[in-house]
Amino acid sequence: MTAATSTRELAHPERTEIRLEDVLHALADPLRLRVVRELAEADRELACSHFDLPVTKSTTTHHFRVLRENGVIRQDYRGTAKMNGLRRADLDALFPGLLDSVLEAAGAQAKRLGGG
Amino acid sequence: MTAATSTRELAHPERTEIRLEDVLHALADPLRLRVVRELAEADRELACSHFDLPVTKSTTTHHFRVLRENGVIRQDYRGTAKMNGLRRADLDALFPGLLDSVLEAAGAQAKRLGGG
Repeated sequence: MTAATSTRELAHPERTEIRLEDVLHALADPLRLRVVRELAEADRELACSHFDLPVTKSTTTHHFRVLRENGVIRQDYRGTAKMNGLRRADLDALFPGLLDSVLEAAGAQAKRLGGG
Repeated sequence: MTAATSTRELAHPERTEIRLEDVLHALADPLRLRVVRELAEADRELACSHFDLPVTKSTTTHHFRVLRENGVIRQDYRGTAKMNGLRRADLDALFPGLLDSVLEAAGAQAKRLGGG
């Protein structure tokens, strides 16, 4: 039973394993940045199905995996849904002010370019 | 004569062409982050030869080009030297607080990991 459960557990770096370069890499993509902005605005976990990205399902899965493997989000199964949550406490502890400045920059840029 | 000069001019994005995703990508590398930290600490232009990166000359050139093409640094020839300067005014105007929070995070991480 434990085995059946553990196969559904996804790999996450521990807080001490998260690296700035990896976080910046994970954020260096328009779609991943959009996911992070939506999670930050929602301030709660959101299912993958909540996000309506203009790419295939497998590309969407890839982007979420990059965010998870680099320590930006946590992904957990709740029944059949994969829930995503921003690792704000970890990121704020490691890199104070970084996430907020990226979110502000992303918001300002979206406004400037007319993308919302 | 103008032509002879212009072949030595390197391409830079205008301030309005700089994108957050591209800046994050440029910063998402340990060596490029190190170059940016050194330029920020020096607070002046530094020649490429100033940087002692543990990679080949061509890899070094590549990293500087990524920083320049994504709007993080300005590169100009002064005689035979290629001088590099951080585009702090452009970055601060576009993304207030971002560069400083990345620099602080990089400094804190270097201290944490014992890399200085």
